[in-house]
Amino acid sequence: MAKVSAKLAAMPTLSATSPEQLRKLSVNQLPDFCKEVARCVLGATAEKEGHIVSSLAVTELTVALHYAFNTPGDILIWDVGHQAYIHKALTGRSEQFQTNRQKGGISGFTARAESVFDPFGAGHSSTSISAIGGFAEAARLQKVMRKHIAVIGDGAITGGMAFEALNHLGTSNLDILLILNDNEESIDTNVGGLHEFQSYKDFFESLGWGYQGPVNGHDVANLVRIFEKEQTREGTRVLHVKTKKHPISLWRKPFEVEDSSQPKQTSFIAYQDIFAKALIELAYTDSRIVVISPAMLSGSSLNIFKQKFPERTFDVGIAEQHSVTFAAGLAASGLKPLVHLYSTFAQRGYDQIIHDVALQNLPVVFVLDRAGLVGEDGATHHGAFDLSFLNPIPNLQILAPMDGAELQSMLAYAFAQNSPVVIRYPRGGEQHESTEVHAIKTSSFRILKDGEKVVVVSLGTIGKMVQRAIQDLPVGHIDLRFLKPWDDGALEAALQPYQYIVSIEDGSMRGGLRDTLAHWLIKRAPEKKFHGMGLPDVFVQHGTLKELNQELGLNEERLQRLLAQVLGS
Amino acid sequence: MAKVSAKLAAMPTLSATSPEQLRKLSVNQLPDFCKEVARCVLGATAEKEGHIVSSLAVTELTVALHYAFNTPGDILIWDVGHQAYIHKALTGRSEQFQTNRQKGGISGFTARAESVFDPFGAGHSSTSISAIGGFAEAARLQKVMRKHIAVIGDGAITGGMAFEALNHLGTSNLDILLILNDNEESIDTNVGGLHEFQSYKDFFESLGWGYQGPVNGHDVANLVRIFEKEQTREGTRVLHVKTKKHPISLWRKPFEVEDSSQPKQTSFIAYQDIFAKALIELAYTDSRIVVISPAMLSGSSLNIFKQKFPERTFDVGIAEQHSVTFAAGLAASGLKPLVHLYSTFAQRGYDQIIHDVALQNLPVVFVLDRAGLVGEDGATHHGAFDLSFLNPIPNLQILAPMDGAELQSMLAYAFAQNSPVVIRYPRGGEQHESTEVHAIKTSSFRILKDGEKVVVVSLGTIGKMVQRAIQDLPVGHIDLRFLKPWDDGALEAALQPYQYIVSIEDGSMRGGLRDTLAHWLIKRAPEKKFHGMGLPDVFVQHGTLKELNQELGLNEERLQRLLAQVLGS
Repeated sequence: MAKVSAKLAAMPTLSATSPEQLRKLSVNQLPDFCKEVARCVLGATAEKEGHIVSSLAVTELTVALHYAFNTPGDILIWDVGHQAYIHKALTGRSEQFQTNRQKGGISGFTARAESVFDPFGAGHSSTSISAIGGFAEAARLQKVMRKHIAVIGDGAITGGMAFEALNHLGTSNLDILLILNDNEESIDTNVGGLHEFQSYKDFFESLGWGYQGPVNGHDVANLVRIFEKEQTREGTRVLHVKTKKHPISLWRKPFEVEDSSQPKQTSFIAYQDIFAKALIELAYTDSRIVVISPAMLSGSSLNIFKQKFPERTFDVGIAEQHSVTFAAGLAASGLKPLVHLYSTFAQRGYDQIIHDVALQNLPVVFVLDRAGLVGEDGATHHGAFDLSFLNPIPNLQILAPMDGAELQSMLAYAFAQNSPVVIRYPRGGEQHESTEVHAIKTSSFRILKDGEKVVVVSLGTIGKMVQRAIQDLPVGHIDLRFLKPWDDGALEAALQPYQYIVSIEDGSMRGGLRDTLAHWLIKRAPEKKFHGMGLPDVFVQHGTLKELNQELGLNEERLQRLLAQVLGS
Repeated sequence: MAKVSAKLAAMPTLSATSPEQLRKLSVNQLPDFCKEVARCVLGATAEKEGHIVSSLAVTELTVALHYAFNTPGDILIWDVGHQAYIHKALTGRSEQFQTNRQKGGISGFTARAESVFDPFGAGHSSTSISAIGGFAEAARLQKVMRKHIAVIGDGAITGGMAFEALNHLGTSNLDILLILNDNEESIDTNVGGLHEFQSYKDFFESLGWGYQGPVNGHDVANLVRIFEKEQTREGTRVLHVKTKKHPISLWRKPFEVEDSSQPKQTSFIAYQDIFAKALIELAYTDSRIVVISPAMLSGSSLNIFKQKFPERTFDVGIAEQHSVTFAAGLAASGLKPLVHLYSTFAQRGYDQIIHDVALQNLPVVFVLDRAGLVGEDGATHHGAFDLSFLNPIPNLQILAPMDGAELQSMLAYAFAQNSPVVIRYPRGGEQHESTEVHAIKTSSFRILKDGEKVVVVSLGTIGKMVQRAIQDLPVGHIDLRFLKPWDDGALEAALQPYQYIVSIEDGSMRGGLRDTLAHWLIKRAPEKKFHGMGLPDVFVQHGTLKELNQELGLNEERLQRLLAQVLGS
């Protein structure tokens, strides 16, 4: 990142770094200012194209909004904060932009703690209409005069909670201007009836919202004119704005930077690619296997699967609830559906996992990617809770592979079950591709190393850190594989030689492996000592994985220090 | 229930107890048969009016569907199974109807395990479109010829997952007939733009669904004609059917039965009424308090609150996700929102509780009613998981009152916090109204009784059972009040005199109080013995609370037996 910062130091200061300064420009100056602010943001960021182009596409819209409305007195909420980089630069954060998504720096999303210009934070999609409704209703009750604006993408509008909010608020007569930022994409190309039939006008009007548009989202002067008229309008209404996500290359002058966040190593293979390849192989042998993804085909490498099996691949849009119950229907009809979810978004389908899949004991395979810490995306995106919230669900098997070979084996295992199975793995990958697939038995675990007094029981890829930490220590290591179910007798025998057990997981320890094992030990081996390592009961902020694990004590050094204490005692 | 069964014994047998028999009747005979089957169902049930009238209102629709379509070969899915009593009677379960919602008897909802005519179970609303989509997609892939029909109420259509499914499936060209059963009510009067503007045609068409209707849902012959035409139609399409929920008194002949499920005692007061009264008092003193309910105002006694404070009461429709984030917006704007949810439906707002409320540390009060076992509603409705899934959420305080006085005290406590608080209590109530409200401190617990060797640590109203069980035993009792946070030092001191700790909770022990306390004991008092009581890791079926608690060992007798063993050892 040092490279990027150095470039930024050479950047000219923005001619307006706050809405107040912006409003002193004439409308004629705005087109040039839009270019200026876009280049500023582009030059200062060195991360994923998806977030940058989303923000750059709303440059003119952002400038026009802050120019015409009286933010922060007027309330402006961005749905999924990664549209909001221009907004951030314009609201006093241009100087800090070099710290974007870095530990201690500004967040990649809007965040209440960061600025009065961020009245509501968002990393998950489709929340903005509910939130702006709350602000508008509060203003009515408190008799505060202000305008309320939310900006939502055409991808995010497919999320069910957006509809719930539209339907409820459509009869409220509240003063809400909803801007539909229609770039015809979420992260992948958008899907669904609304998008395909471009029937937004009928849709919004059917729910009681006024409709205006579509208008060109890159004509800043026209947007300012529209927003100035909006000052005197009231009621729930939608402005449909068309924007284009330009490829980043069009913007990339004069601040040429490279994406340096992922070291390019030819032998490196991501878990998501291991998963997708293994799934394709299984799908060739079992025609009942079908795949459902809520708008995350490329983020999950399932776009490769789609190329091979287009009719067996379902991108349902940003629609986690539907994705799970749709899979339940497929399973009830004899197919073998796999639902792919980022761990943090699985929270959106929680009731459906319980009520539609587990209760009916349907054989749906859930693959949770981005489990554990995700790094720079931060608190909204860490997969910190999945082990804990899945743990109490009856009929569910919960597995976490320690490496790519195990991931492949577990996938084969999962499709062989007649009941629901979760496999969760983190962001990242490993150096050497493995194809060593082996049969896994229910409740089986792996004794990876024998030791004397202490044994580390790990779940998931964090076991690789354990291996490195203990290679020269007389410490045992068990890779648990399953959070549940367990083979009590076998586990008891495996732990029998040890006086001290250390559990380690990359999720919340509260209700996760730690607490589960603690209770198990009290019942079965109360004489043993126990210590749990994992995520504490706080929201973890953003930073690199290395920095976060260091801060949380989830690295080799801290594990070794703990083990030294135990071995010395 | 004996009274009801006796009446049933005198009932005439239905002239058709299966779709096969039904199809032998002529269309002219159907109106009379509708009356016959409705009376049969009515006579055989002695429970809540809400469910019966929902089912009776679709008598003609149900008869016409089974008459015209080839169930169970054709797939018919009912959204929220309590519309499905007539369907059950017609599909071989009329003889068992007297066992409806009784332990070991048939379920109050559709259930896959119960009949081939129930291809998909449902107790929570808005799932049917996703599910029928799964069946239809599976049929296309498997090249099976059959028709696919789902019936959804105008209340359930407001749930976000219904929209997610409509939007996704609207471009699918699958053969799905969706019947909108529009009785203009969910449990309360329906709300939202769709209902208010009766804009269903535009709404469905905007998402790519054909639309037909509205038609009279009580003209069975006409419904049969329509369905026969539907045999040759394809694509995703909606039939809008208008039905009336007649007051039950119109049907109540000749099988007059009384609701005998709740003993009528004048001094009995339900927790939900204690809650609503206490909330009204608090709302008089703090004008920032507002209330949000997803279509459950009467089920929560908040209709009383609405009478007093109509402008501060928000029924958002069946829309749990929106309800939580709408509250987050209100809180971010300076108000003190309370979101009322049934525990089981809180699963629908899980991501929003984490991402929109807890992460932003907004002071929203969540009141979870129907926590723990609910009895006759069974597996889909037990509030079995809330303690476990809320437990890992940072910033959240989780409380459970032991009685009505504690409930009132906790409500006052919750509104005094600057962070989110959950209060959860079960169905039911108590004999004597209490108004003794006292100040509660964070992390405080109550030592209700001293003992010698053993102490029972209880959370919530199950503590009253503990009190009865141990009144003559030398056993201590602590009412924990908080699942989190805890005052470690104070709790350590309180447990210090005891060698044996028994925890008891009315939720899943996995990830709940049991596991949390087990880990705490290992770290702080490893010499103590421990036993947890609560719900096991299985889905609990339906029955009376007494029967279920007996089966699960959550009653005085079983606790006393355990304590006798411990005291004797």
